[in-house]
Amino acid sequence: MSLHYIIPVQVHNDLVAAAYRKRGYDADEANAAARFSQITAEHGIKTHNAIKALHLDELFGSRAGGCKPGAKIEQLPGKFKAIQTWNANRKLGQAVAFAAMNACMNLADEFGVGIVAVDQAFHYLWGGGYVIDAAQKGYIAYTSCTAALAEVVPFGGKYPTLGTNPHSWAFPTQELVGFPICIDWATSTVAMGRVQQFAREGKQLPPGAGVDEDGQPTTDPNKIKALLPFGQHKGYGLSLIDELYAAYIGGSLPTIRNRWDRVSAGEKGTCCFFFQCIKPEAMSSGDFAAGRDQKANVKAVLADILGHGNTGAMLPGQIEANGAALSRKHGGLLFTAAEVEALKHIALEAGFGFAAEGLKTVEL
Amino acid sequence: MSLHYIIPVQVHNDLVAAAYRKRGYDADEANAAARFSQITAEHGIKTHNAIKALHLDELFGSRAGGCKPGAKIEQLPGKFKAIQTWNANRKLGQAVAFAAMNACMNLADEFGVGIVAVDQAFHYLWGGGYVIDAAQKGYIAYTSCTAALAEVVPFGGKYPTLGTNPHSWAFPTQELVGFPICIDWATSTVAMGRVQQFAREGKQLPPGAGVDEDGQPTTDPNKIKALLPFGQHKGYGLSLIDELYAAYIGGSLPTIRNRWDRVSAGEKGTCCFFFQCIKPEAMSSGDFAAGRDQKANVKAVLADILGHGNTGAMLPGQIEANGAALSRKHGGLLFTAAEVEALKHIALEAGFGFAAEGLKTVEL
Repeated sequence: MSLHYIIPVQVHNDLVAAAYRKRGYDADEANAAARFSQITAEHGIKTHNAIKALHLDELFGSRAGGCKPGAKIEQLPGKFKAIQTWNANRKLGQAVAFAAMNACMNLADEFGVGIVAVDQAFHYLWGGGYVIDAAQKGYIAYTSCTAALAEVVPFGGKYPTLGTNPHSWAFPTQELVGFPICIDWATSTVAMGRVQQFAREGKQLPPGAGVDEDGQPTTDPNKIKALLPFGQHKGYGLSLIDELYAAYIGGSLPTIRNRWDRVSAGEKGTCCFFFQCIKPEAMSSGDFAAGRDQKANVKAVLADILGHGNTGAMLPGQIEANGAALSRKHGGLLFTAAEVEALKHIALEAGFGFAAEGLKTVEL
Repeated sequence: MSLHYIIPVQVHNDLVAAAYRKRGYDADEANAAARFSQITAEHGIKTHNAIKALHLDELFGSRAGGCKPGAKIEQLPGKFKAIQTWNANRKLGQAVAFAAMNACMNLADEFGVGIVAVDQAFHYLWGGGYVIDAAQKGYIAYTSCTAALAEVVPFGGKYPTLGTNPHSWAFPTQELVGFPICIDWATSTVAMGRVQQFAREGKQLPPGAGVDEDGQPTTDPNKIKALLPFGQHKGYGLSLIDELYAAYIGGSLPTIRNRWDRVSAGEKGTCCFFFQCIKPEAMSSGDFAAGRDQKANVKAVLADILGHGNTGAMLPGQIEANGAALSRKHGGLLFTAAEVEALKHIALEAGFGFAAEGLKTVEL
């Protein structure tokens, strides 16, 4: 049990938007950032909430040149009808990701599948947020990206040359099980955000999480210098997929990504994004057993998987859905005392009047 | 070191095709099966060679009603231009998979991406073979399927309700690194084929591979009754993707799949396949660092990942490529003595004159 502060959504979003505007972002960008931070906080995603978003913006974004407030997205010419390729011109990742997923949905409406590949991108934070949002709108959604920094050692190697390179899938199962199934994780055993969280909380990491400065495995979050892929060669392969997509799109060497001091003239240090939506109707044979329709069929399959005494198993996305239910129950976004302190600093920087002392609290 | 027999490709393919024709398959199906068995044997994929293919056909296929020799594929009507949905009518999996991947390539030529979703399918054996074949033709290829039987326990559960549900991706990197990068594995820690192989060889499995009849973890291949997903919730999520794709396509309950004694009237016991090809040019921004073109860029990224002292790391697909190089070096397909014995039985069944005693041998 620990004390949580309940921040009304409007207060949170106004604060976050003000902080982004203060850093030079336009109103649309600030609103996209606020909307996305709301989604993360609602779902209990502590590692990618507004505090992390603004911290990353400071480290790699508007203050470092990795992100350009007010930048315009260019759709590049192309003859392939179900794929668009964009130059994001380092525009804010959250604004680009919402727009790209929206374009995928429009393409999927016509072609059954739509892909948007994004070059010159800046970190979009939590892929799960975008795919859950698209699944809520009825699509099977997928995204991957090259994470900001090369922090992960390839299986069998010793030096970090891969990002934590996440993959996120979501399925429109909200009518069937109460929430979109969302499969979403970094391809490292843990994300670096988790390492920092464990360091703050004084906890040890699971084995296989990372290596120290000598390349030796360690579970001490304070000693970890590089991460390891989950599942050995399997997680390594999944991480490599993000790097390959990026390399085909336009991304350059992983080890100079976002290391602006190492990005020479003619080189590139930006991330790439890959988004895909599929219209579920487009992949339906129309022939479902026992007279079921497509949705009833998906529901029956899920019931079979979680049946047969598998009461200890849960569907991916359940934890995030529980977070969203808790936020709804308490009528706002839930933050710890330490997070409220961080938000106070953000409000101060932005010149935003944040009445933290008036917030309701709850023990969770 | 062990003795291997070198079987000329033509002899192998004629033998395999004869065996399939003997079981009632038509010439096109028999040739697809032979071509696919050649691909597996060439790449050293012992778990899915002709012997396994014909054994599965016996267990679940033409002799069990799961596969229908001579069946015709129906392309189902649909208005979504970049996705086709097929009813395979239980046609031989290898013939369906080659045709589906071919259709994906044609769709990708026009739309940038093409998907073929297949209902009423029979096991296609080794997804890696199809994506490597498509990558050799210049495409970024992906496939997944619901494996024949529910053998895997969902993370946190105790009863097997998931297939070993593989995912296979390949990238057309053959000009860049000598072979298509191929990321291809079951979502269980090991495949059941590997358990059987370890049982034959008297070896112990790695921890986390499976559970015994009481649901307790075991490393003894003879005691394993059900498998576990790799990487805990992550592998479980990846396995669930295959089941969800199948459920949206037309597949029914995983626990009755291929258990024909449990498939009542109006139910379905067949597998589903999902195939996707992307044209690399369709996702290119055209803006690559240091004046590189798309291929040179992919090559530079891969060199960065394997550089920096990562000499112990390799690219996925290297082992299969080494197998193919070995096959080329010895001028044929390489089989152990035990495998040649199995092939003799297959030849006998098919009434095919297989002159095993005349085969050249090599110590490998």
